[in-house]
Amino acid sequence: MPSSSPDNSIDIDRSVTPVSLRTLAMPADTNANGDIFGGWILSQMDLAGGTYAFYIAQGRVTTVAVTGMQFHKPVYVGDEVSCFCATQHIGNTSIAVRVETWVRRRREEIEEKVTEGLFTFVAIDKDGNPRPIDSPDTSYRVKS
Amino acid sequence: MPSSSPDNSIDIDRSVTPVSLRTLAMPADTNANGDIFGGWILSQMDLAGGTYAFYIAQGRVTTVAVTGMQFHKPVYVGDEVSCFCATQHIGNTSIAVRVETWVRRRREEIEEKVTEGLFTFVAIDKDGNPRPIDSPDTSYRVKS
Amino acid sequence: MPSSSPDNSIDIDRSVTPVSLRTLAMPADTNANGDIFGGWILSQMDLAGGTYAFYIAQGRVTTVAVTGMQFHKPVYVGDEVSCFCATQHIGNTSIAVRVETWVRRRREEIEEKVTEGLFTFVAIDKDGNPRPIDSPDTSYRVKS
Amino acid sequence: MPSSSPDNSIDIDRSVTPVSLRTLAMPADTNANGDIFGGWILSQMDLAGGTYAFYIAQGRVTTVAVTGMQFHKPVYVGDEVSCFCATQHIGNTSIAVRVETWVRRRREEIEEKVTEGLFTFVAIDKDGNPRPIDSPDTSYRVKS
Amino acid sequence: MPSSSPDNSIDIDRSVTPVSLRTLAMPADTNANGDIFGGWILSQMDLAGGTYAFYIAQGRVTTVAVTGMQFHKPVYVGDEVSCFCATQHIGNTSIAVRVETWVRRRREEIEEKVTEGLFTFVAIDKDGNPRPIDSPDTSYRVKS
Amino acid sequence: MPSSSPDNSIDIDRSVTPVSLRTLAMPADTNANGDIFGGWILSQMDLAGGTYAFYIAQGRVTTVAVTGMQFHKPVYVGDEVSCFCATQHIGNTSIAVRVETWVRRRREEIEEKVTEGLFTFVAIDKDGNPRPIDSPDTSYRVKS
Repeated sequence: MPSSSPDNSIDIDRSVTPVSLRTLAMPADTNANGDIFGGWILSQMDLAGGTYAFYIAQGRVTTVAVTGMQFHKPVYVGDEVSCFCATQHIGNTSIAVRVETWVRRRREEIEEKVTEGLFTFVAIDKDGNPRPIDSPDTSYRVKS
Repeated sequence: MPSSSPDNSIDIDRSVTPVSLRTLAMPADTNANGDIFGGWILSQMDLAGGTYAFYIAQGRVTTVAVTGMQFHKPVYVGDEVSCFCATQHIGNTSIAVRVETWVRRRREEIEEKVTEGLFTFVAIDKDGNPRPIDSPDTSYRVKS
Repeated sequence: MPSSSPDNSIDIDRSVTPVSLRTLAMPADTNANGDIFGGWILSQMDLAGGTYAFYIAQGRVTTVAVTGMQFHKPVYVGDEVSCFCATQHIGNTSIAVRVETWVRRRREEIEEKVTEGLFTFVAIDKDGNPRPIDSPDTSYRVKS
Repeated sequence: MPSSSPDNSIDIDRSVTPVSLRTLAMPADTNANGDIFGGWILSQMDLAGGTYAFYIAQGRVTTVAVTGMQFHKPVYVGDEVSCFCATQHIGNTSIAVRVETWVRRRREEIEEKVTEGLFTFVAIDKDGNPRPIDSPDTSYRVKS
Repeated sequence: MPSSSPDNSIDIDRSVTPVSLRTLAMPADTNANGDIFGGWILSQMDLAGGTYAFYIAQGRVTTVAVTGMQFHKPVYVGDEVSCFCATQHIGNTSIAVRVETWVRRRREEIEEKVTEGLFTFVAIDKDGNPRPIDSPDTSYRVKS
Repeated sequence: MPSSSPDNSIDIDRSVTPVSLRTLAMPADTNANGDIFGGWILSQMDLAGGTYAFYIAQGRVTTVAVTGMQFHKPVYVGDEVSCFCATQHIGNTSIAVRVETWVRRRREEIEEKVTEGLFTFVAIDKDGNPRPIDSPDTSYRVKS
């Protein structure tokens, strides 16, 4: 049985999903409380989802919506931060991407999910107008 | 009659609402398309909402959710970017803040709304645990 | 009677002046003492004054001088930082803008003025040469 | 037969190696030529190697040497940048980590290796003094 | 005869003055016009003057005033930017430092002065209160 | 007798060598340990070497290799960081530049060498292809 997340949605299966973004949380990313700033985490998730959608849509995309975005736990300086993506829905010109953020705390072996949300992107042409996603590349890539 | 936004919600009345954050979109904030990066906009909205919630909750808050976040129009380098906030709901320990982003394009007099979303914050004590919002300060401040 | 600042100049009346820039002082903006770095504050004031001058001059401007710049009090991480601008003088090709920085400290209701200075900008054409400010737009905008 | 890199070393086998760092090259990371700045790439490799060494050494590490660092091809804005690590040698107090950087160019399916180098880290205690790596954790983690 | 600057002040003699700060102007430092942002230049000058004053005052200092700050010429991406400092006056608790910024444009051999200003710093103790500058170290250092 | 560095190489003679880069280590440049991040130091050295090589090669260069890079001592917030360069070798299209980093700690008069390495750059034309370094400008500049 797959593990369930706090809102009863199903976790992305990280054993078969290539990580879309992985980086280290640095002191420059903190807020006045000394924790990692929520906006920095949203930025990383937007980058991760946008890169993921780019390859599926085979070209430029732009963020149009974020829904169901939840912050479950804080992110600390020194955490290894990883974003995993999964396709929720592909429409005529848009792609809804589920993005989960997982961290490995320093000195701890387990990863835990800290945030998740649904980011929707629209495929755009060179003038910034929506374009149809005719042949989405859902193969993405082999695990790496 | 108040103007209505694309999703039929009511625009925040900016003539009586102090701006929570106002800054200039710079080249360092662009993505590979040359437009302002969505994550940067989310960061500004999170900062704006968090500062707003801080004063209502009279102390530290942390972001717990983002819902109904919509990007209506792109933000360009040189745009003056302003975030306006309004209280949607105050719960036991949480505050839901509606955040709208408006821009003034260079050389144009009118402002237009570019994004909006609902950011929820939880009031926390010095150990990071939720604390009740006993006496919310809803006066915020006089317009400035 | 208007309040007077340390150098006996008159404070900008913030009840009728729209804020030109408002942001949050973050840990990434600190110096080795742990206070907010003076250069960051100067940057924000230059941005505020430049945006203000841009709309009056109806186009590109460049900073040519800073005078009478005073730092009255430190800015701390977590302070809400606001810059207010007023026109001191409009010349043939230049605009002198008085810029004041005010902060609201965390958990405190009052704002206090922390810096002030006079920034002069020259209106430039697309080649970077000075251009006359024929019809300055002094209406700026309604309060928001 | 494993593919060979320009200097005849063996490529890290990315099909079984979890990526240590993956991010997007942004306009803010460019040099005066418009390409991604070499120092930014070195920073990412140092972060990747340091995180990798941290888990093997089960605690704090500090960079002590970089050798055999080669830049084979430029990195462009919009490239997805991935760093892969492999242990070259574990000494008494030090770990030599081979770090390779691979990019996926926008709209192209294949990844290509752009840089590689050997980063050596020393395990340190809380006072910054070298400490023995008694029981290195070479399992690192399952592929993700 | 020493060269004279636009305001008839005497240029700092760079043949005997160690450079206080030298760096490269990068794309991340540009404004919406594509030139280097004035606030970035002010930041570098404040850093340069502050480091200079730190050694003279033998301890922490804080910026209290900027006067006579002039921007003579634009700074471009790729310029090598150097700040030179000279002591104008040492008071009881304060030091007035003249700061000049010079650039070497790409492919050009000559340096030219682009900005100059007078930055005043106050020596402070660990609580942030002014402290007397009893024995200023005016030797600074041998040229390097 | 010239001072010898830990690896028995000869220190660059800083009394006759103009500094290539000098800046202040800031809190934004720290890693999770609170020390200055190794990648930031590598970035500064790459900038220093690249600017140095640019003038010798009389035009654009790109980093192709780093060898013998050693970190001798940590860099702390508030340190004045200086990079000095010397030409090790000029080839047909490439320049090997020795780069040393020296710091002056706060309140201490002496400078100490903290890192050193050999950075190799290739001269490139406007299409990014290698170009011969026909007439290297080895005069660099008079000391300043």
